[in-house]
Amino acid sequence: MSVKHARDVEAVEVTQGVKTIKQVLISAQEGPNFALRRFAMEPGGGMPRHTNTVEHEQYVLGGKARVGIGSEVFEVKKGDVVFIPENVPHWYQNIGDETFEFLCIVPNKPDTTTVLADEPPC
Amino acid sequence: MSVKHARDVEAVEVTQGVKTIKQVLISAQEGPNFALRRFAMEPGGGMPRHTNTVEHEQYVLGGKARVGIGSEVFEVKKGDVVFIPENVPHWYQNIGDETFEFLCIVPNKPDTTTVLADEPPC
Repeated sequence: MSVKHARDVEAVEVTQGVKTIKQVLISAQEGPNFALRRFAMEPGGGMPRHTNTVEHEQYVLGGKARVGIGSEVFEVKKGDVVFIPENVPHWYQNIGDETFEFLCIVPNKPDTTTVLADEPPC
Repeated sequence: MSVKHARDVEAVEVTQGVKTIKQVLISAQEGPNFALRRFAMEPGGGMPRHTNTVEHEQYVLGGKARVGIGSEVFEVKKGDVVFIPENVPHWYQNIGDETFEFLCIVPNKPDTTTVLADEPPC
């Protein structure tokens, strides 16, 4: 691939999330070192507290969410940049009335998602 | 860092480009495997034909540009996803009346930018 449009990339539901879809814009097969993904969470949607074995570098494209990283909670919006180190618990809650969308880049390394016990996010 | 806003990140002029600035949103010191940068090219701006020794994964945030990759030329706009393999000649020309902005992710590996001879881009 050289150029594609995000809207043409298949969206899959994220089973661990609520009203959340993921698109793999540039896959681990297309890029030699890292993958570029887009997540979209509808109003009321989000992801429960979980860990990944790889770090995340993220850029918020639109909407508004509360994001927990470790013991901290942030409110993020368009243009915010988020770094989540590997193995640090994190969660997302769309707190706006628009879709919360962000890019999330991960290295081409094995990733395990572990949803943590049924604790309320905050 | 956990969260920062793109507008708070220092912008530096790209000396090889025209009316082009770069912000390192997540640096090689902050992220263990790759760096997240934002480029902005004013109307009339762009980057001449050049190579890098690392690949680029890019996402267009706004504006409109002509982008050359190898022997191909593309017109790109918001939501387009671009992959440029390492060592492949590429160039950018803002062809709109708004700032052309995109994210560009590169691996944490040594990168050399080589501007190619004074050929017209197309």
